[in-house]
Amino acid sequence: MALKEIYLDNSATTRVDDRVVDYIARVMRESYGNPSSLYDLGLKSHLLLEEARKDVAALIGGKGENLYFTSGGTEANNWAVFGTAHAKRRRGRHIVTTAFEHSSVLEACRRLEGEGFTVTYVRPDEHGRITPEQMLAAITPDTILLSFMLVNNEVGTVMDYAAIAGPAKKLAPALTVHCDAVQAFGKLPLKIERTDIDLLSVSGHKIHAPKGIGALYVKKGTRIDPLIVGGSQQGGLRPGTESLPLAAGMGYAARLRGESIKEDYRTVSALHAYATEKLSALPGVTVNSPENAFPYILNISVEGLRSETLLHHLEAHGIYVSSASACTGGAASHVLAAMGLPAGRIDSALRISFGGENTPADIDALTDALALGIATLARAR
Amino acid sequence: MALKEIYLDNSATTRVDDRVVDYIARVMRESYGNPSSLYDLGLKSHLLLEEARKDVAALIGGKGENLYFTSGGTEANNWAVFGTAHAKRRRGRHIVTTAFEHSSVLEACRRLEGEGFTVTYVRPDEHGRITPEQMLAAITPDTILLSFMLVNNEVGTVMDYAAIAGPAKKLAPALTVHCDAVQAFGKLPLKIERTDIDLLSVSGHKIHAPKGIGALYVKKGTRIDPLIVGGSQQGGLRPGTESLPLAAGMGYAARLRGESIKEDYRTVSALHAYATEKLSALPGVTVNSPENAFPYILNISVEGLRSETLLHHLEAHGIYVSSASACTGGAASHVLAAMGLPAGRIDSALRISFGGENTPADIDALTDALALGIATLARAR
Repeated sequence: MALKEIYLDNSATTRVDDRVVDYIARVMRESYGNPSSLYDLGLKSHLLLEEARKDVAALIGGKGENLYFTSGGTEANNWAVFGTAHAKRRRGRHIVTTAFEHSSVLEACRRLEGEGFTVTYVRPDEHGRITPEQMLAAITPDTILLSFMLVNNEVGTVMDYAAIAGPAKKLAPALTVHCDAVQAFGKLPLKIERTDIDLLSVSGHKIHAPKGIGALYVKKGTRIDPLIVGGSQQGGLRPGTESLPLAAGMGYAARLRGESIKEDYRTVSALHAYATEKLSALPGVTVNSPENAFPYILNISVEGLRSETLLHHLEAHGIYVSSASACTGGAASHVLAAMGLPAGRIDSALRISFGGENTPADIDALTDALALGIATLARAR
Repeated sequence: MALKEIYLDNSATTRVDDRVVDYIARVMRESYGNPSSLYDLGLKSHLLLEEARKDVAALIGGKGENLYFTSGGTEANNWAVFGTAHAKRRRGRHIVTTAFEHSSVLEACRRLEGEGFTVTYVRPDEHGRITPEQMLAAITPDTILLSFMLVNNEVGTVMDYAAIAGPAKKLAPALTVHCDAVQAFGKLPLKIERTDIDLLSVSGHKIHAPKGIGALYVKKGTRIDPLIVGGSQQGGLRPGTESLPLAAGMGYAARLRGESIKEDYRTVSALHAYATEKLSALPGVTVNSPENAFPYILNISVEGLRSETLLHHLEAHGIYVSSASACTGGAASHVLAAMGLPAGRIDSALRISFGGENTPADIDALTDALALGIATLARAR
């Protein structure tokens, strides 16, 4: 008999919702016109695309006209960082971010350092916390970009954006505030138009839409250069023939998330509390996530056992979790390193990430398998 | 009764093949693991991705390991141009391209001019022809990039790449040769590893795969900077979680094209000859495509009638063609302008682009509808 699959790696990616699969297949079959074509087949595609734009924007309390589809969160983050730096280079050359951002922000910042920009990387403490005061202390009148994750992808730190974005703008007249909301999207309720955030990155495949689609929300009046140049699609700000099937799928997935965002938050909060209690009770387990972390993510270390060993042990029990982020392909976590954790804690870290489909029975299975691993794998060393 | 749809705009985009739709839906349902995840669900996705890479590369006679998926042809072209210029800026600052490239190459070149590069735009003659001699005359020892379309997207000019790429490299020691093969892909047989082309851009939605996926082929040893930076996916050269469903769909579509490439070429060549004969016989029609043009594309002008008027007239008869490229959203064709055609010819141009599914009856319907338009619309002016 096949093992029941217990998927606890929802921050890496999610299963595409069956309803979304059906809708995408329908769009591929029925709406193949190029959205830029001038005849009715094209117009039909164009209208579906605008509907998708509106649906995705609605999930962050935004307007469709400000939403630009990208190939995913990585492109959206790159665009936000490069596009802002290049558009505003005459206003200043200083950027503030954190040391535990996603690599698509960190690598972009490093490239900009090579172009003459100065970047301040604010460091989290050993519990994965960064205070608004720390962020504000890094801002100078020359700062043109402040970029930080709403929810950290590995430990679940929730940044207090309201206490950061507005006050930061008072300190730097040319400041653009960018938030990587890939992990927060569809999970943390947000009304972007009521915040001081100017740019916001989101991704489809974390909310049960397929991989290969994301978006950057660009608030009206925000100066940003395109990352990709060419045709007149998306107002010339993000040219290239739009991926109507994936955009439509992301729009539909966003509508579905909107309907269940509160209920899922409650479900996942209960699971998170239950998992924290059960896993903390196991010998050698330490929680790496901060106390008030986002409930969708729980990061732990298991003393003396390597992440990869644990991961494959759990896999043998049909349980899927990850070591660090999937995007680094198994390299040691730069997030936990930024928190200053010792090598032993970093090398033994597991990220457990929940979805609305998970149940307490999943947590029980995880706890049992992990307990068995701790008992048996420890002896094997 | 609904009008039979006669789709003659295959260079703008194509209908997704039903078998490709089914396959993508299956991949979305069954293979949702992140290809970078270390457990079996991730490995399964990774293997499917590698298979897709191999299938797409095979259609151009290349190796899967050299193929990098992008969000489409536009990103692939941008990456080739920016990535080469930035990687080789210390070797030279001169770029050669043509005046009738796709906007994703032309706009990238214009941006590079702002960064201190010099670009030579070789102009086609009034028949849309550029000779190898013209291209070679533009090369200097300082030239680092030569970028040209294998097949022009609006008039169908086929560039003699064999007579250009190798000789050009003898004139410029640091030269990278990039070909935009978006229109040629899956239609013009190509063995890239036997050519002097280093970089080649392709797109999925021109070969009955969905919009939102393309690729850049990067021959081993070619120096190129990434356009998008971040995680370790695709060797770090094109990071971001890969769109497995679309990549798999493109791979499958490439396999299907490979099976019918010769037969389709024969079918389309006959259609092209038939259409040229029938349409040329209509009053006021001039062919803008060169004599030995690619059979998949036929560009004509209709004296005294605006493209948009004709396009909507044909649409009323269920026939879909385009004015210029879809990517410019209806703006006047920069391709025909580069050929030095008078405004009247440019404003009255139609691009008819064929696919293996088209029939002589489609051409008859087009000819009849166009003849009616010429008779009636002309009177209305």
